[in-house]
Amino acid sequence: MGRWEPDAAGRLRTAALELHVERGFEQTTVAEIAERAGVTARTFFRYFSDKREVLFGGSEHLQAAMVAAVESAPAASAPLDVVAAALTAAAEMIGGNRAYAEQRWSVISANADLRERELMKMESLAAALADALRGRGVPDPRAGLAAEAGIAVFRVGFERWVSGPTAELADVLAAALADLRVLAAG
Amino acid sequence: MGRWEPDAAGRLRTAALELHVERGFEQTTVAEIAERAGVTARTFFRYFSDKREVLFGGSEHLQAAMVAAVESAPAASAPLDVVAAALTAAAEMIGGNRAYAEQRWSVISANADLRERELMKMESLAAALADALRGRGVPDPRAGLAAEAGIAVFRVGFERWVSGPTAELADVLAAALADLRVLAAG
Repeated sequence: MGRWEPDAAGRLRTAALELHVERGFEQTTVAEIAERAGVTARTFFRYFSDKREVLFGGSEHLQAAMVAAVESAPAASAPLDVVAAALTAAAEMIGGNRAYAEQRWSVISANADLRERELMKMESLAAALADALRGRGVPDPRAGLAAEAGIAVFRVGFERWVSGPTAELADVLAAALADLRVLAAG
Repeated sequence: MGRWEPDAAGRLRTAALELHVERGFEQTTVAEIAERAGVTARTFFRYFSDKREVLFGGSEHLQAAMVAAVESAPAASAPLDVVAAALTAAAEMIGGNRAYAEQRWSVISANADLRERELMKMESLAAALADALRGRGVPDPRAGLAAEAGIAVFRVGFERWVSGPTAELADVLAAALADLRVLAAG
């Protein structure tokens, strides 16, 4: 994401991440983020409820894309194949900008409050996927299990992708899901 | 857990839960918890760092029991069978007091801060199980995946046990793990 893209939200996200990497999350103020993005603090709060949220603004889009993939998967697909489609949708959305993902991850990993918020986002993502699976007729507890297993694959795969050698996120996630299948069969 | 058990930590846990159920978590003070347990607030803080922690004091014991089960599983066991042994250990520790588990769960579910702390505890539990699996020679990412899958089974199964009809926790967890195996094979 370049600094000069026209949308203020995107500029604020980029500016926040730059400053967090340079100075640390705690040492960065909303005023400084707004200044670097070329907007006022008031504009910042039009887009984000607090300083933490600027790092998580993309999570609604991610959730919407994954839920849409669950809803549009072929009717005959098995639950974990439906989850695989959601993981592919996630990889399409965030796999193209590894530098951004790496920086964001390094900032979040270093701060307990941010890790908590990330966990809460993953939790609501799992709940949304479980709901979408129930909407396809998958009964409980399988809907919840398939959704939680999908999030486990996403988290383990994402961390591997973002901290390992260069690879496509879609491939890393597919490999992790294949590994889970091997584990479950073993 | 009775109110008159001799240990102060246990009395404080019971008193806290009673008050949370009666008045809600936010409306209960540490002074009130200490008073009901028959100790001083100073004693409370000898055992718990804050008001939230009194609800999570058992989590180190749970983690220790699950890690010990992983470490003492037969050398030839497959990773998910090792995780199954850890789930059995968890059921032995917390399955015997459903009334306490139900009350604790209702308090935690109703409060976002408590749900966050619960997620963080589950996260460190998953990390500890993954480490113990690596100690057995299970390579990454399988160690992380097996641990996260185990926690997914634990969470889905526990919620089902605590909010559903009477059943043994060990049986509910075993059924959830079997369901995950079916999903992964499907």
